[in-house]
This record gives sequence, structure tokens and C-alpha cells, in this order.
Amino acid sequence: MAFVLDPRLEADTHPVMELGLSSLRLMNDARYPWFILIPRVDGVVEILDLSELDQARLWGEIRQLARFLRGAVPGAKLNVAALGNVVPQLHVHLLARTPEDDAWPRPVWGVHPPIPRTQGEVDHWASQARSFLQGLSS
Amino acid sequence: MAFVLDPRLEADTHPVMELGLSSLRLMNDARYPWFILIPRVDGVVEILDLSELDQARLWGEIRQLARFLRGAVPGAKLNVAALGNVVPQLHVHLLARTPEDDAWPRPVWGVHPPIPRTQGEVDHWASQARSFLQGLSS
Repeated sequence: MAFVLDPRLEADTHPVMELGLSSLRLMNDARYPWFILIPRVDGVVEILDLSELDQARLWGEIRQLARFLRGAVPGAKLNVAALGNVVPQLHVHLLARTPEDDAWPRPVWGVHPPIPRTQGEVDHWASQARSFLQGLSS
Repeated sequence: MAFVLDPRLEADTHPVMELGLSSLRLMNDARYPWFILIPRVDGVVEILDLSELDQARLWGEIRQLARFLRGAVPGAKLNVAALGNVVPQLHVHLLARTPEDDAWPRPVWGVHPPIPRTQGEVDHWASQARSFLQGLSS
């Protein structure tokens, strides 16, 4: 069966690029540099539901995205999480936290309503991520 | 420099076993089947601070622990997270969630004060985890 992005994930994010396994999307919340990776495999809820090969590819994509965020937000604390309590379709959050952000030191989920990004902010993050990640193998 | 477990992680958890890279500990909150992995490498805050080899070992230990939790709590949703906003020493949370738990569907961090486990509960989870994980290579 073809992969279909969960409509809630689609509504909460902007598309950035397609990696080898996952769609990379930007959360529509200007409070944080916040990306999600969604493996394009139908019916997958847990990391363990992926094939061994795809689990390794996902780990590689998490690490590439972490490298990008560490460079883009120097000194930030990275938060990496696969939760899926609300939207079960497997997706991995990767975001940069700083002591100045609105939820610090709490996790970001459910703390504040999102502040939608301007088109300029979307373009900025999407183009930065694409520049860094393009050409990297996964 | 020798690895020293952060005293806050030590205070919040019970020891379970030593895996190839990480110490496996049980969070002292009876609300959830909740483990943490702490790589025994001094000064590590982000996953990317580990060597390439240790990153791969950590991923292996996350997956082994996830297999254990999936078997121990059938039908649960697994939550996997490396946050570290409060305690920077790298540690990975792995816990089993169900719609009946106290924080569902929110993340567990900071929602409720922990309910300390009885010694029987500690022994139950520690021995189950040890039975499953002993002898697995990492």
C-alpha cells in the first residue's frame, strides 16, 4: 500500500525535502527550530516496525539532522523524541532548545499553542536544512 | 576521566544492569514501565558527542530495550526520547504508554509527581529486563 502522510502531521508542518527514507518537515511553530522525520513506509508506528535496514537508515537521518541543528543553533540542547501518543504514524521530533525558549526546561509538547511561522521563517529554515542535507547519503 | 553517574539520575532511578555501552536503570515512578539508558562515557551530552561506534552501540541498546518493553507490555505505545534539558548527562528514556496511564496522551515529563515503586515492583521489572537482555550482544 502506498505511503500516505497523516493529515494531522501534514497540517502541523511545512515540507522541507525528501531524504532517502524519510520526509523531512518543519513544525509550524516559530517558538523553536523544530523538524520531524517521517519514514515513508506505510503502517509503521514503532521504530521496531521498520525493517532492520530502514531502522539503520532512520538512525542515519536522525544523526544528519542533529548535525545540521547543532551547526545552525550553536550551544543549543537537542531534543530527540519518538512519542506518537496522539498521531501514531511513526515520526521523530528533532528540535533545538535554549534556556531562553518558552517551554525551557520542560518538553515542548502541549505546553503552549504554536505560533505559526512567517513565510520568511519557513523559507529560511527549509533552505538552510536543504543546503546542509543535500548530497549527504542516507 | 572516569564516568560518574549524575547524582540526579542516580536519585531518580534504580540500577538494573550494565549493557555493553550503557547503564540500564529503572525510573522510580510506579506510574509507567520506564527505563533509561546512560552511556558510560564521561562528559557526553548529545548523541553526536559519542564516537561513531558508540552511537551505533547506543542505537542497538535502544532497540533491544524497545523489544523488551514491547514484549512486556503488549499493545503499549513506546516513547523514546533524549531530552536532557534538566540533567545534561546523556540519557535516553524508553517507556511504555497506554491510554489508561496518568499522563496519556501527553508526554510524561513534569506532568505528575512520581509515585515511588515498591521493592517488589523494582525487583519485578529489573528481573524481567535482565532475563530478556542478558546474553544479547550489543
